[in-house]
Amino acid sequence: MAGTGSIFLFFFLSLLSFSAISEASKCSAQEFPVVRNISELPQNNYGRGGLAHTTVAGSLLLGLKEVEVWLQTFSPGSGTPIHRHSCEEVFVVLRGSGTMYLAPSSHEKYPGKPEEFFIFANSTFHIPVNDVHQVRNTNEHEDLQVLVVISRPPIKVFIYENWSMPHTAAKLKFPYDWDEECLELEPPPKDEL
Amino acid sequence: MAGTGSIFLFFFLSLLSFSAISEASKCSAQEFPVVRNISELPQNNYGRGGLAHTTVAGSLLLGLKEVEVWLQTFSPGSGTPIHRHSCEEVFVVLRGSGTMYLAPSSHEKYPGKPEEFFIFANSTFHIPVNDVHQVRNTNEHEDLQVLVVISRPPIKVFIYENWSMPHTAAKLKFPYDWDEECLELEPPPKDEL
Repeated sequence: MAGTGSIFLFFFLSLLSFSAISEASKCSAQEFPVVRNISELPQNNYGRGGLAHTTVAGSLLLGLKEVEVWLQTFSPGSGTPIHRHSCEEVFVVLRGSGTMYLAPSSHEKYPGKPEEFFIFANSTFHIPVNDVHQVRNTNEHEDLQVLVVISRPPIKVFIYENWSMPHTAAKLKFPYDWDEECLELEPPPKDEL
Repeated sequence: MAGTGSIFLFFFLSLLSFSAISEASKCSAQEFPVVRNISELPQNNYGRGGLAHTTVAGSLLLGLKEVEVWLQTFSPGSGTPIHRHSCEEVFVVLRGSGTMYLAPSSHEKYPGKPEEFFIFANSTFHIPVNDVHQVRNTNEHEDLQVLVVISRPPIKVFIYENWSMPHTAAKLKFPYDWDEECLELEPPPKDEL
């Protein structure tokens, strides 16, 4: 029985150790070759139904400080939360189609009814700093895939439950889902408070 | 004859006026819809053989301050100059294949022999700040198309004639070709001198 216990303990410790290495690997540029096959990079839905997220190049993944690039695929009916952030964001639609909802920032206390824009393969758009927005796959028949570029990573997102929620009630999510596993928790910069 | 002269003058002035409007349009976000079809955006080779460049989202095109996105197509045998810049840069290869040459920054006085990396459709790589690099379509049979993301636009590029040219002899090109037509000339920031 002692033998069995030892083997179990060894197995358990190996598992812990392997898990620790895996966690570290995800966040270390050294683990990746200089040129990477995007389809072989880690993909996850981070608990968000219909999402497949891959960080193509990131602050935590590769030590970038000024830009970050994501590949995101949304199945029909899924999309981003209603949100805003103070970084710049550019979208390039690779395939599928959908709707971008945009409530330009104003002196109103809440976003209000957004404008709706049809987005389609080979289209591009950018989100002005702090404008509340949402991207949704409103096409029932195919996935929507986008390449997303943001500035000043890691991203600090304010999330709204609906378009009538006051800006002051929007909830800061920092670190964001895909940064959570690597980021050493620090208070957000003062200009975000 | 006076009539013919007037008509000619009117035509000439109209042409000037039209040309002025066109120049302004290229540089004004107001001229573009929120969602833009990338294949309908202006494309140019800026005098560089084998290149087709489109600014997808830019500092001069749309007033972005923190990121810029380009779509570039290189015909077989063509490529970028050997160059460096102090902004971050991320490439996503959309189609074709080629070679990325990279000479990591060091204390040497010149870049020296670069490492060579095979790049291919659906691959990604980033260029560390100030590393001297070049991207070339070394595939004889098809175009190489890449999406390029840079930080802190507009870009300030130092160009090398070859890999043995001293860093101090590299020539600053600012504004860069695709920024030239819109940029109000300003001296480069002090940290670039």
